[in-house]
Amino acid sequence: MSELTIWTYDWVPEGPRGFVRDLRLRWVCEEAGLPYVVRTVPFDGRETNHLAHQPFGQVPFLSDGELEMFESGAGLLHLARKSDRLMPRDPAGEAATVQWMFAALNSIEMVTVPWWFLKISGDADNALTGWMGMRLDQIEKILGGREWLAAGRFTAADLLMADVLRVSDVRAFGDRPATEAYITRATDRPAFRKAHAEQVAHFAAADQKKTGN
Amino acid sequence: MSELTIWTYDWVPEGPRGFVRDLRLRWVCEEAGLPYVVRTVPFDGRETNHLAHQPFGQVPFLSDGELEMFESGAGLLHLARKSDRLMPRDPAGEAATVQWMFAALNSIEMVTVPWWFLKISGDADNALTGWMGMRLDQIEKILGGREWLAAGRFTAADLLMADVLRVSDVRAFGDRPATEAYITRATDRPAFRKAHAEQVAHFAAADQKKTGN
Repeated sequence: MSELTIWTYDWVPEGPRGFVRDLRLRWVCEEAGLPYVVRTVPFDGRETNHLAHQPFGQVPFLSDGELEMFESGAGLLHLARKSDRLMPRDPAGEAATVQWMFAALNSIEMVTVPWWFLKISGDADNALTGWMGMRLDQIEKILGGREWLAAGRFTAADLLMADVLRVSDVRAFGDRPATEAYITRATDRPAFRKAHAEQVAHFAAADQKKTGN
Repeated sequence: MSELTIWTYDWVPEGPRGFVRDLRLRWVCEEAGLPYVVRTVPFDGRETNHLAHQPFGQVPFLSDGELEMFESGAGLLHLARKSDRLMPRDPAGEAATVQWMFAALNSIEMVTVPWWFLKISGDADNALTGWMGMRLDQIEKILGGREWLAAGRFTAADLLMADVLRVSDVRAFGDRPATEAYITRATDRPAFRKAHAEQVAHFAAADQKKTGN
């Protein structure tokens, strides 16, 4: 098997720890039992220091032997396809999983991330608020009727949707019990817990290196 | 071959004509030579009238025989995989194409659509403006160095990126000649012209029906 390498920053401030998107790739590897290593690019100078690998200066990007790809959604799809634990092999199950992966990114995260960005920029009562509420209500209704989004079981679609929804500002945007229970179901999984703990530990270790402790 | 059906609205106002996302699916079918039919759900009552097919009340959704899926990105990926004209068959070409499809939706459209929404809501000078300029500058730099995004030729990634970038408010956001030339290259393709003309004609015909002309 070719070696999987997940690339992330060498360090980030405390705020984003546990939320940097290398977590999506760590999590899928843990769920699928795929061995991987984590390597880093410097956080300082990130705007330009790894543009040859990621043209927006972001992380993660993924190496799989000779292949390299950026965009956490693309990396997740690539890794999920290696295992039927994350990606059903039957055409209907695969179609449902892929559609919900795109929905997580293009119908939910397309609203939640800009809304969150406006909020932390000091504009909490912005024009995206109505759209945000509508989308979260739609997802709440769907999650009220099923345990997982696609194929009657946990798939890559849930991994991505739960990661999109678990952001604290999004969870605090009204009381949505089915969504909350869904996030808990997903993040209680041992694979999430391990991936999350290892990301947090990775960045904390960089703190200790910096201060020489 | 199973019958492909692209579902869109029966009518939309003039503003979005030529931009409704069924265009992405029409365009890929035209590029790949896939026969398809277009069917409709009512625009009136769209919030609730087709939730069984599209949980956000949007279009398009796609039927392929027994399969059905929503999200234009998912439908585009499904259709693109039917033809090497849109999706390279070699692993490196496929990985590059898929990563740029996700980039179009999750790194570019995630900024451009909310920015546009704030603008038409009367908030043109909003907190997304800096992010918008940064992303468009990054894409301009990339497009200055290559004709197409992936695999050295037109792929599904260009179809999606060009569709994201051709929105007039986005094009008017500063002078970016490489991006402008890229949009022109993509939208000059006979498959785009046909898909675009047929969408515009589809909605115009609904006008005539409504007024009884």
